[in-house]
Amino acid sequence: MAINTVQQKVLVIHGPNLNLLGQREPEIYGTETLESINRMLEHIAERHNIQLTCYQSNHEGEIIDRIQAAIDTMDGLIINPGGYTHTSIAIRDTLVASPKPIVEVHISNIFNRETFRSESVIAPVVTGTISGLGVDSYRLALLWMIKHLEA
Amino acid sequence: MAINTVQQKVLVIHGPNLNLLGQREPEIYGTETLESINRMLEHIAERHNIQLTCYQSNHEGEIIDRIQAAIDTMDGLIINPGGYTHTSIAIRDTLVASPKPIVEVHISNIFNRETFRSESVIAPVVTGTISGLGVDSYRLALLWMIKHLEA
Amino acid sequence: MAINTVQQKVLVIHGPNLNLLGQREPEIYGTETLESINRMLEHIAERHNIQLTCYQSNHEGEIIDRIQAAIDTMDGLIINPGGYTHTSIAIRDTLVASPKPIVEVHISNIFNRETFRSESVIAPVVTGTISGLGVDSYRLALLWMIKHLEA
Amino acid sequence: MAINTVQQKVLVIHGPNLNLLGQREPEIYGTETLESINRMLEHIAERHNIQLTCYQSNHEGEIIDRIQAAIDTMDGLIINPGGYTHTSIAIRDTLVASPKPIVEVHISNIFNRETFRSESVIAPVVTGTISGLGVDSYRLALLWMIKHLEA
Amino acid sequence: MAINTVQQKVLVIHGPNLNLLGQREPEIYGTETLESINRMLEHIAERHNIQLTCYQSNHEGEIIDRIQAAIDTMDGLIINPGGYTHTSIAIRDTLVASPKPIVEVHISNIFNRETFRSESVIAPVVTGTISGLGVDSYRLALLWMIKHLEA
Amino acid sequence: MAINTVQQKVLVIHGPNLNLLGQREPEIYGTETLESINRMLEHIAERHNIQLTCYQSNHEGEIIDRIQAAIDTMDGLIINPGGYTHTSIAIRDTLVASPKPIVEVHISNIFNRETFRSESVIAPVVTGTISGLGVDSYRLALLWMIKHLEA
Amino acid sequence: MAINTVQQKVLVIHGPNLNLLGQREPEIYGTETLESINRMLEHIAERHNIQLTCYQSNHEGEIIDRIQAAIDTMDGLIINPGGYTHTSIAIRDTLVASPKPIVEVHISNIFNRETFRSESVIAPVVTGTISGLGVDSYRLALLWMIKHLEA
Amino acid sequence: MAINTVQQKVLVIHGPNLNLLGQREPEIYGTETLESINRMLEHIAERHNIQLTCYQSNHEGEIIDRIQAAIDTMDGLIINPGGYTHTSIAIRDTLVASPKPIVEVHISNIFNRETFRSESVIAPVVTGTISGLGVDSYRLALLWMIKHLEA
Amino acid sequence: MAINTVQQKVLVIHGPNLNLLGQREPEIYGTETLESINRMLEHIAERHNIQLTCYQSNHEGEIIDRIQAAIDTMDGLIINPGGYTHTSIAIRDTLVASPKPIVEVHISNIFNRETFRSESVIAPVVTGTISGLGVDSYRLALLWMIKHLEA
Amino acid sequence: MAINTVQQKVLVIHGPNLNLLGQREPEIYGTETLESINRMLEHIAERHNIQLTCYQSNHEGEIIDRIQAAIDTMDGLIINPGGYTHTSIAIRDTLVASPKPIVEVHISNIFNRETFRSESVIAPVVTGTISGLGVDSYRLALLWMIKHLEA
Amino acid sequence: MAINTVQQKVLVIHGPNLNLLGQREPEIYGTETLESINRMLEHIAERHNIQLTCYQSNHEGEIIDRIQAAIDTMDGLIINPGGYTHTSIAIRDTLVASPKPIVEVHISNIFNRETFRSESVIAPVVTGTISGLGVDSYRLALLWMIKHLEA
Amino acid sequence: MAINTVQQKVLVIHGPNLNLLGQREPEIYGTETLESINRMLEHIAERHNIQLTCYQSNHEGEIIDRIQAAIDTMDGLIINPGGYTHTSIAIRDTLVASPKPIVEVHISNIFNRETFRSESVIAPVVTGTISGLGVDSYRLALLWMIKHLEA
Repeated sequence: MAINTVQQKVLVIHGPNLNLLGQREPEIYGTETLESINRMLEHIAERHNIQLTCYQSNHEGEIIDRIQAAIDTMDGLIINPGGYTHTSIAIRDTLVASPKPIVEVHISNIFNRETFRSESVIAPVVTGTISGLGVDSYRLALLWMIKHLEA
Repeated sequence: MAINTVQQKVLVIHGPNLNLLGQREPEIYGTETLESINRMLEHIAERHNIQLTCYQSNHEGEIIDRIQAAIDTMDGLIINPGGYTHTSIAIRDTLVASPKPIVEVHISNIFNRETFRSESVIAPVVTGTISGLGVDSYRLALLWMIKHLEA
Repeated sequence: MAINTVQQKVLVIHGPNLNLLGQREPEIYGTETLESINRMLEHIAERHNIQLTCYQSNHEGEIIDRIQAAIDTMDGLIINPGGYTHTSIAIRDTLVASPKPIVEVHISNIFNRETFRSESVIAPVVTGTISGLGVDSYRLALLWMIKHLEA
Repeated sequence: MAINTVQQKVLVIHGPNLNLLGQREPEIYGTETLESINRMLEHIAERHNIQLTCYQSNHEGEIIDRIQAAIDTMDGLIINPGGYTHTSIAIRDTLVASPKPIVEVHISNIFNRETFRSESVIAPVVTGTISGLGVDSYRLALLWMIKHLEA
Repeated sequence: MAINTVQQKVLVIHGPNLNLLGQREPEIYGTETLESINRMLEHIAERHNIQLTCYQSNHEGEIIDRIQAAIDTMDGLIINPGGYTHTSIAIRDTLVASPKPIVEVHISNIFNRETFRSESVIAPVVTGTISGLGVDSYRLALLWMIKHLEA
Repeated sequence: MAINTVQQKVLVIHGPNLNLLGQREPEIYGTETLESINRMLEHIAERHNIQLTCYQSNHEGEIIDRIQAAIDTMDGLIINPGGYTHTSIAIRDTLVASPKPIVEVHISNIFNRETFRSESVIAPVVTGTISGLGVDSYRLALLWMIKHLEA
Repeated sequence: MAINTVQQKVLVIHGPNLNLLGQREPEIYGTETLESINRMLEHIAERHNIQLTCYQSNHEGEIIDRIQAAIDTMDGLIINPGGYTHTSIAIRDTLVASPKPIVEVHISNIFNRETFRSESVIAPVVTGTISGLGVDSYRLALLWMIKHLEA
Repeated sequence: MAINTVQQKVLVIHGPNLNLLGQREPEIYGTETLESINRMLEHIAERHNIQLTCYQSNHEGEIIDRIQAAIDTMDGLIINPGGYTHTSIAIRDTLVASPKPIVEVHISNIFNRETFRSESVIAPVVTGTISGLGVDSYRLALLWMIKHLEA
Repeated sequence: MAINTVQQKVLVIHGPNLNLLGQREPEIYGTETLESINRMLEHIAERHNIQLTCYQSNHEGEIIDRIQAAIDTMDGLIINPGGYTHTSIAIRDTLVASPKPIVEVHISNIFNRETFRSESVIAPVVTGTISGLGVDSYRLALLWMIKHLEA
Repeated sequence: MAINTVQQKVLVIHGPNLNLLGQREPEIYGTETLESINRMLEHIAERHNIQLTCYQSNHEGEIIDRIQAAIDTMDGLIINPGGYTHTSIAIRDTLVASPKPIVEVHISNIFNRETFRSESVIAPVVTGTISGLGVDSYRLALLWMIKHLEA
Repeated sequence: MAINTVQQKVLVIHGPNLNLLGQREPEIYGTETLESINRMLEHIAERHNIQLTCYQSNHEGEIIDRIQAAIDTMDGLIINPGGYTHTSIAIRDTLVASPKPIVEVHISNIFNRETFRSESVIAPVVTGTISGLGVDSYRLALLWMIKHLEA
Repeated sequence: MAINTVQQKVLVIHGPNLNLLGQREPEIYGTETLESINRMLEHIAERHNIQLTCYQSNHEGEIIDRIQAAIDTMDGLIINPGGYTHTSIAIRDTLVASPKPIVEVHISNIFNRETFRSESVIAPVVTGTISGLGVDSYRLALLWMIKHLEA
C-alpha cells in the first residue's frame, strides 16, 4: 500500500469458449459471464495493489504468444486452458519455459465428466490446480497468488 | 419462396487443408476444388431460399471464433473438421454450446484409413455424421438441413 | 423414365431388432415403424424408376444369405446392420465380396451412446456411412445411391 | 390360486449348447440334462400357477425372434445366453426393448474361467444376474420372478 | 426341527457403507435398512433351524478378522463386499482359505454403473454371485445356502 | 480296404462366405470353388475308405447344430470357421463339447491381414491349426486326420 | 459473530501418513507439521465462527466410520485422502452418501509424480479439488467452505 | 556379543491372512505356521544379538500405525505385505517415509500365479525383494539385514 | 526320379531347445527326439528326390546366418522358431528377405498355452503356419513343400 | 555458383516455443538462440546457392498456411514441429499434400523424455527424422537437403 | 565334509553385460567386479563342499547351450539373466526343461527403474527370485541352494 | 593431417540382415550394398583423419561383445541395430555402459512401416537418431561425429 512500491503483475489466461460463459451449458458452468469474473478478480487485485491482466482467446497460438510476451514481466500466471487442457503440448511447453508460479483453474469438476476430461496435459507442469469450485476456482487462485507474491 | 419470409441461415465450415481440395491426394479426396463445392452448395441453397455462408480456415481458433460469431444467428451448421476431427476438444466444446442442428461431413471414408482417423472427437456432439460419399457428403448434409429447417 | 430401360436394383437390409422400430426405445429411434420407412423408400424409388427390395432379419446368417443372393443382380446396397454393426466379421466379409456401392446407415448417432457402439466393423468396407439423422439416414442413402447409379 | 385369475407368463431362454447339458464338460456344468431342468422349473411354476415356456436354440437370430414374439405377452424373462453372453449386442438390444423384468443366469461361475467369460454384454441391461450356483441359478431366478410378479 | 440336531451356521458379512442402507442413494439401493434385511434373513434362518450371524463393518481388516474367526465353525458364508468388491485382494485371500460355500451378493446391478464396478476381484473365488435383485439378492443367497447345507 | 470294416467318419465344416470361393477376393482366396475343394477332399477320403461329409453354412447356429448332430458319430472334424473364427464363443463351446480331434483350417494366412484376423477364438480349443496354404490347408488337414484315425 | 447463532460445522479428514507431515519427504510435503496445519485451520474457523473438527487416521475403515458419524451433523467436509486417493472405492461410496459440499485437497501436485497418483477415485464425487499449493491447499478449501456456507 | 553394545532392532511385519499359515492353501504356502516362522527368526536374531519384533495384522491401517511407531527406533524392516502387496499405496507411502533398509518377502513365487499378483506396488520403494523360497524367504531376508546392519 | 534332374533343396530350421525334444515337457512336446523327426523328414525327402538339410541352433544369430547362407540356393524353408517365435524381429527380417515359400511349424498348439505364445512375430511373413499336430506338423509342412515345388 | 542458374528453395519451419531457444530449459535445448540457428543455416545455404526461408510461429494454423503457400514453389522442407509433433494431424495432412522431400528435426532426443514425446504423428509422413543432435539436427537436415536437391 | 561324498553341483549363469560390473553404472550396480563376486561364491561353495561353476556370456544362445549342457549333471542353477530377463522366451523354455531348483537374482531393484524392467519373463518359471540386495543377491541365492541341497 | 596427432576412433555397428543390403527389399532399403556404404564412410573418415572400424553381425551377443571390446578405446559409436532395435534390452544396456557419443541410424523411415517398428528400445539411451534418409543416414551420422570429436 506504500506509494512507491513496484506493483506485482499477475496474468489471467482464459482459454477457448470461456468467452461464452453464462450462455454455454449453464448447468455445468454457471450463469456468470467472463466479464463479471474479470471484474471480480480486478476488484481483489486492486485491493491488494496487484496489477492484473485478463486475456481470453480461442487460439492456441495466441495463448502461447500472450504468455511468452509476459514471461519476463509477470510475477504469476493463472490459466484456465479450457479445451486445450487435454491436448495442448504446445501450451504446456510454454508454461515449462516460465519460472513463475502458475495455477491451473477449472470452473467445473473435470473429473466427473467425459473420461477424456480427466487427463490434463497442463497439470504436471503447473504449481497447483483448483477445479470444480465454480468461479471461486479463479478467486481462490488469485488469493493464493497474492499471498504467495507477498511472502 | 414468398417474398417476405425471413431466410433461414446455414453455416458451412471447412477445416484445415480443405482449401487444397483438387490438389491434395486426389485418389482419396477427388479432383473437385473447394470453390466448386461451395458453388454447388450455394446453388442448392438458393433454390430453397436458404442463406448459406461457407468458411474455410486452417486455424482451430478461427474456426471456433467463426462458429461463436454465428451461434445466435445461424439455424444450422455443417462442418468438415478436417484434421481437427480427431484432436480438437476446443471445437467440440464450441459445438456443444450451440443449440442448433449440426451435421459433420467427411469426403473420404475415415474408417478405412489410418487407425487414428476412426475416432472423431466431434461426432459425439453433433446431430449426425455423413462420411465417405465424396462431395456428396456435403450435398446430402445440406439437403437434410434444408428439409429439417423446413419441418 | 424411358419405357425400355432396364431398371437398376437396390437392396435395403435392416438388421436385428429394426422390426421393432416405433416400439423400442422411441427416445433414441423415433416413433416411425419399419413399414413406414420402407414405404417412404419405395415411394422415392418408384419416382426414380429404381427397383427396391427391403429385407429385415434378426439372423446374421440370413442377412449374409440375402446379400449373397443379390450379389450378381443388385446395383447398390443400403444396410443398417443394427447390433451386428459392432461384431459381425461374417457380414463384413460378405460386403467385401460385393463390388457394388454400399451405404451403411444408422438411425441414431452411434457415437454418443455406449462406448462399444462407436466402433463399426462394417464401416471400413462400405463406400460411406450416414448416422444420427433418424429415418432420413435411409432417405439420404437412397438419394445418393440413385444419383450414383444414374451417373 | 383362484380359478379366474389370468396366469402370469414367464419365458425361459436357453442359449447355444445348453441342449448338451449333462454331456458337455460335466466337471463345469454338472450332469443334469436340460430336460430335467425344464421339468424342475415347470414343477415350480405349476405350484405358483405361473405359465412357463422354455425355449432353447443355438441360433442368435432365433433367440431374438423368440423374445420379440413374447415381448407383449410375457411378464418376465429368464435367460442363459450361453456363448452369446460375451458377444451378442443384437440380443442385448432385444432385451433393452423389453420393459419386463429379466434375470440372466449362468450355471457355472463365469468369473473364474477364461478371461473373456468375465465380461457379459448382457448383464448391463438385465434386472439382475445369478451365476455359479449350478441348476439352482435357474431355480432361484424363477423363485425371484414369481415373487416379483406376485408383488 | 428335531431337538438334538446340531444347527448349521451361516455367516452374513455386510461390507462398507451398507450400514447406511435406506439413507444412501435410495434410487440405487432402495429404502430398506440393514436392520430390516437382517431381520428378514434371521426369520428365514429360524424357520429352517439355521444359526445365522450378521456382521457389518467398514474396515477391511475387521471383515478379514471376522471371516477368519468363523473359518472352522461356519458352514456357509454370504458376503456383500461393498466397495471392497473391486479392490480387496486381502479379503479374496481370506475367502480362498475357506473351504465352505460362499455366495457374493450385490443389491444393485454392478454391471450397469461405473465401469470399475463391473470387475469384482471377489467373484472368481466364490461359489456363485447374485446381483441386481435388491434385498432379494440376500434372500436368494440364504435360500440357496440352506438348501445346499441340507443336501 | 477290407470289406467289413466300419468306415471312420470325418465332418468338414465351411463357415460363412466360403460358398463364394472362386468369386470373392481371388487375390486372397484363390480361384478354386468350394465344390472343387469338396470333390478333391472326397476323392482323398474315398481312397482311404473314409466317409466324408462336407457342410457349408453362413449361419452360426446352423454350424453349431450340425456339429452337435455329429458329436456322437463323427471321428474327426475339420473346420474353417470363416468370419466366425474371430467372434464365435458359441461355436468354440460346441467344439469343447466334442472329444474328437479337430483341425482348424484357413485358406489365407490370417496373420498378415487386418489385425483382428490374428486372433482366433477357436484355435485354443482345437487340436491344431493350418493356415495360409490355400486349398492345401484343407488337404493337409484331411491327410492328418486320416493318418490319425488309422493310428 | 452474533452470540445466539448456531455454528456451522466443518469436518477435516487427514488420510494415512499425514500424521508424519514435517518428517516424511519434506522436499515434497514441506516442513510444517499436521498440528500446525490444524492450528492454522482452527484459527481461521474461529474468526468466522465455524466449528471445526480435524481428524487423522491411517485406517480406511476409521475414516469411513468418522465421515458416517458426521453425515447428519456436518455442513461441509474437507478431505485429504492420502494414499487412499487412488484406491478407496469404499471411501468414495461414503462421500457419495453425503449430500454436503466436499473439497478434496492435496499438499503436493499429484499430477507430476508417479503415474498412478494422477488418478483419484475420489475426485469424481467431490465438489472440487485443490492440489499442489502446499498447506495452502487446506487453507483455500476452508476459505471456500466458509464462503459457501455463509452464502 | 559384548555386554554393553546397544542392540540393533529389526521389525518383521506379516500382512493379512499370514496368521492362517499352515492351514490356508498348503500347496502354495506350505505347512509351517506363522508361530514357527517367528520362532525360527527369533532364534537367528538371538544368535546375532539382534532385537527382533514380529507383528501380524489383517488391517492395512494397523500395519501403517505399527511401522510409523517404529520409524525412529527400528534399524531395519522385513515385510510380507500379503494381499496388500498389490493394492496398498498407503503402506507404500509409509515405507517411503522410512529411511531404513527394507526387505519385501513372499513365501510363494508371486510371478507364477494370477496375473494381478505379478505387480507389487511395494517393490519399487523397498531395498530388495525375495520371493518364492518358502519360509526361507524370511530367513534370507533376516540374514541379509543382520549382515547389512553389522557392516 | 529322372537321373539328370537337378534336385530341389529344402532347408529345415529347428529353433532353440528343440534339441531337447523327447526330454523337455513330454506332456506338451511328445516323446520323439529331434533326430527321429529329422530321419522321418529325410525319408520322405528321399522318396521325392528332394535334398533336405536339417539344422538346429539355440542362437538367434546362427539361425539368421544359416538362412542367409541358403537364400540363393534353397527352394523352400520349413522353420520351427521355438522361443524366438514370439520375439525375433531379426529372424522375421531375414525371412522377408527370402523370396521362397516358407512354412512355420509348431509341435504344440501355441494358442492354448501362455498368452504370450499366441502371438507369432514370424507368422505374418511366412506362406503358412501349421501348429498343434505334433511331429506331424513337420511332416505336413514337408509334404506341402514337395507338392508346391513339383507344381 | 553460375550466375544464371535458378536457385532451389528450402523452407525451414520452427514450431511453437522455438522462438524461446536459449532461454527455455537450456539443459535440454542448449543456449543458442533461434536467430543464431537461422544465421548458421543461411550461411550454409548461401555457400550452396540455395534460397532459404526461415519461419517461426506458435500457431498451428499459421504453420499450415505457410507450408501451403510454399507447396508449389519450395523444393524441400525442414520442420521442427515443436509441441505440435505429438498432436497435429492437421499439419500432418498438409505435409502429406506436399510432394517434396521433408526432414523432421528435433534439437533434443525426444525418445528419452516424457512418454508422450516418443510418438510423433509427423514422422510417418516425412522423408526422414533427425533428433537429439542439438542445433546440428538442423544443420545435418539442410546438408542432406542440399545434397538431395543437387542430385 | 566326508571324503567319499559325491559333491553337489551348482551352476551360476551371469547374463549380458555383467562382465562389465564395477565399470558400468556403478551408482546402480556397485563397484565390485564379476571376478570378485565369483571368488566370493566359490569361497562359500568350498566351505560347504559344493562344486560351483560360474559362466558369463553376452549371447542368448550360449546361455541356453550352457544350461542345456548341465541339465543332467547340475543340482541347482542360479541365474542373473541381465537384459534377457525381460525378453528371452528361449531361455525361459530352457529353464522349464530343467527339473532342478533355480534362483533368479538381480543386483539392482528391477522394480524401481524403467517400466519395462518390472516384467521378468523368467520369474514365472523359477523357484524364487532375489533382487535389489546388491551382490548379496547372489550370496543369499547360493546359501539357499546349499541349504536346499543339503535337505 | 599433422603427423603426430593421435587419431580419433569411431566404431560403426551394422545389425542383423544389413549384410543383405542391396538384395533385401530394395524398395525399402535401396540398392547399395553394405560394402559400398562402408567404403563411402571410410572415404570420409580418411579425409578427416579418423580411424573407422565397421562391423556387421547377425548375433545380438557378438554385437554386445564388439561394443564392449571398444568401450575404452573408441571415441564415438554409430549403430544401426536392425531388427534388434525393437527388442534388445541387452544391447541397450551395453550402450548405457558407454560414456561416448552414440548415433543410432536407420536407412528406412521406421515410423511409417509396421507399428512395432515405431518403438526403438535403443533410442532413449543414444545421443541422437537419424532415420529415413537412406545411406545418407550413415553419412550424416559420421559427419556429426567427426565435427563433435573435433570440437
